[in-house]
Amino acid sequence: MESYDTDDIIYALATPWAQSALAVIRVSGEGCKTMLANYFSPAKALLQAKNATLVHGFITEGKDGKKLDEVVAAVYTAGHGYTMEESVEFTCHGSLPGLQAILASFKRIGLRPAQGGEFTFRAFLHGRMDLTQAEAVQELVAAQSPRSQAMALSRLEGTLRDRISGAKEELLVVLASVEVQLDYAEDELDEFVFPLERLRGVETSLSLLASTYKVGRLYGQGARVVLAGATNAGKSSLFNLLLKQQRSIVSSVKGTTRDYIEADCSIEGIPIRLYDTAGLRESADSIEVEGIKKTEQLIGQADLVVYLVDSTDDARFPEPDAKTLLVYNKSDLAKAPKGSLSISAQTGEGIVALAHAMAERLREGVQATGDEQIIIESERQHLLLLQAREAIERAIALVERDIPLDIVAAELNEAMQNLGELTGEVTPADILQKIFSGFCVGK
Amino acid sequence: MESYDTDDIIYALATPWAQSALAVIRVSGEGCKTMLANYFSPAKALLQAKNATLVHGFITEGKDGKKLDEVVAAVYTAGHGYTMEESVEFTCHGSLPGLQAILASFKRIGLRPAQGGEFTFRAFLHGRMDLTQAEAVQELVAAQSPRSQAMALSRLEGTLRDRISGAKEELLVVLASVEVQLDYAEDELDEFVFPLERLRGVETSLSLLASTYKVGRLYGQGARVVLAGATNAGKSSLFNLLLKQQRSIVSSVKGTTRDYIEADCSIEGIPIRLYDTAGLRESADSIEVEGIKKTEQLIGQADLVVYLVDSTDDARFPEPDAKTLLVYNKSDLAKAPKGSLSISAQTGEGIVALAHAMAERLREGVQATGDEQIIIESERQHLLLLQAREAIERAIALVERDIPLDIVAAELNEAMQNLGELTGEVTPADILQKIFSGFCVGK
Repeated sequence: MESYDTDDIIYALATPWAQSALAVIRVSGEGCKTMLANYFSPAKALLQAKNATLVHGFITEGKDGKKLDEVVAAVYTAGHGYTMEESVEFTCHGSLPGLQAILASFKRIGLRPAQGGEFTFRAFLHGRMDLTQAEAVQELVAAQSPRSQAMALSRLEGTLRDRISGAKEELLVVLASVEVQLDYAEDELDEFVFPLERLRGVETSLSLLASTYKVGRLYGQGARVVLAGATNAGKSSLFNLLLKQQRSIVSSVKGTTRDYIEADCSIEGIPIRLYDTAGLRESADSIEVEGIKKTEQLIGQADLVVYLVDSTDDARFPEPDAKTLLVYNKSDLAKAPKGSLSISAQTGEGIVALAHAMAERLREGVQATGDEQIIIESERQHLLLLQAREAIERAIALVERDIPLDIVAAELNEAMQNLGELTGEVTPADILQKIFSGFCVGK
Repeated sequence: MESYDTDDIIYALATPWAQSALAVIRVSGEGCKTMLANYFSPAKALLQAKNATLVHGFITEGKDGKKLDEVVAAVYTAGHGYTMEESVEFTCHGSLPGLQAILASFKRIGLRPAQGGEFTFRAFLHGRMDLTQAEAVQELVAAQSPRSQAMALSRLEGTLRDRISGAKEELLVVLASVEVQLDYAEDELDEFVFPLERLRGVETSLSLLASTYKVGRLYGQGARVVLAGATNAGKSSLFNLLLKQQRSIVSSVKGTTRDYIEADCSIEGIPIRLYDTAGLRESADSIEVEGIKKTEQLIGQADLVVYLVDSTDDARFPEPDAKTLLVYNKSDLAKAPKGSLSISAQTGEGIVALAHAMAERLREGVQATGDEQIIIESERQHLLLLQAREAIERAIALVERDIPLDIVAAELNEAMQNLGELTGEVTPADILQKIFSGFCVGK
């Protein structure tokens, strides 16, 4: 990426590889209109198309060559569109042999298949978005819940970028005043009062932002919830009930072993990976013992354990801790202890309240401290925010101890560096490479 | 469909329901721009957009409402675009929660989810395409091979429509001359010479077109190829080898029973469903007997049976017939009889020649008789062509037997009716319903 240049014309299928009504193939790069016009009929219409207009026609195998598909070309001239480069987006028929033929033809004529995130990378390089916005693009596409999609959309609009810019500007004012002091001999200046409150303001702002990471992670990456309990406590019925009731975007995931089953669902907007486990009981059966071992492992890694107690049974159960929710099942058959969470996985009674209690428990301790408008989801951003904050904290401590200003300035410069890395101004090439390679192709 | 009206504004996701870089949501119907502008920011840009232009903005939940996604809207005014109606196609992020939110919002504000093929049906109703072209749209999308995709594209361009129009015009000239005779008393006219050659020309043209159905069906719907042979003859190795070598578009299909495995591949452009069967040997095992029964059933339904003979063994094998290809396996271990097809499923030797021989055998007897430019794939079109041709044949026979012209005219009118039904001018509503309901949603 260090030697990356944008001279190549890149292309990619931007919609899924599956038969469908429509599919979109993106092409971007200086001169792509002229190049593609040789493989488009009517060529003139494509060549003369103004920015942000649509041209109906055919992709062909060359002048008077075989027609490959009837398409609509969305044309952008340099300085516009997603990449800010000259680009064409073809809306094709969603025919697999047709798409294959077009993609093969594009490769043959010298266009280069785009790498993951390469269109967005170019948008970033050409200044259409900063790095927080570029990351938001992939976070938006990969969002597992409406809330994380909305949070990513807000970052894509630049809310996070603006907040960081604000912090940088404040920091710059402080730095400038310090540097004036450093540039002149002490006796040339009036007595200097360090703008400590201003710096504390920046520190608070970055702290608040960093604290939103817990929420962002919960809604973005979701939580692991394990259903545990004795054999026959009704775990599998509850598993199915939760999936059915809460399914907004459910895709069942094949268990890697038969010892547990996992599936995705969403509870109050939190993406949940739900695990149905082997019953926890003492067993002589070696296969079952293995299953129980796996269950214990899963419980160890879980964000929340829903421990199901059979109300009709005088079973023993664990002391509930912060990550365990004790739930009495079979409320249709026996009474649960007063004040306890009680459900009937058979009749569905109490299931809505349980789901709500699960969401509440997962949200405990991850509420942002007041700053709910902008929420970060990226671990990278979180780390850089923490580093910037720590540098500022060190600077404040130095000022309070009357340490010479050049040492304070070094810390402030480090904070600036961290924030610059966050927005992509000074981000090393290998980090950029890593970020964009996680994107899907066509973005 | 008889009471179908195009007043509704319809919408559909036109790309697959899967996470991806981009997704397209189509909206069509008079007034959709004005309606959508309430849920789009900047509303004014959408309202004022000229035909075939792109507008960048956000889909929202209403004026000053929450933003649902950043999108590009492709705008068409009435009389243009795919449906010839006012329409907007949104290119959105391929985020599942995002798409779900937009689709739910569109439903809430009163747009109607489109039925399968409904956009194309409107294009047909508004005269943008005839019925053969509308059918070609779905045939194109569903094409399993490059050849059937190309054939469908040609029909979509109107080649079949033009050919049928030509036949209808010829037929009309003949009919007109007949009707002049019927309108006047015999003594008012010169002696009438029936334009028999002209009618024979139409008959030939329709015959040729109908004969292309075999090719269209082979490349469009593909062929069933069964691998058979004794246990241990190497069927499974060959199965895997054919899939690997020939995979252009391969999707493995889960077998309905464990008695055979099926998978899709493509050989020389012919879509093949390949079956790997239980070995054919006498067996006492009742489960195996069941498997062999299934194999025999599959062979009965196959278009081609590749019967694998173990060259190292003195096995018995069937007399090859028209649909059986005898292939000697294990050419690396033993010599096959001279002039026979011989392969090694182990080393891959001879596999390309085998694939070619399979394609040749499948193409035997299905070559179109000279008329290769336009190829039909639809059974409906085939039947109507045959019916039209038969009516013309009857008319010719009547003329040759000097039967009164009004009876000849009735046959000619029937042929016209068949051709009109083919292109959609006089197609009954229930037939139309049936045709379009087979389309995918979003088309």
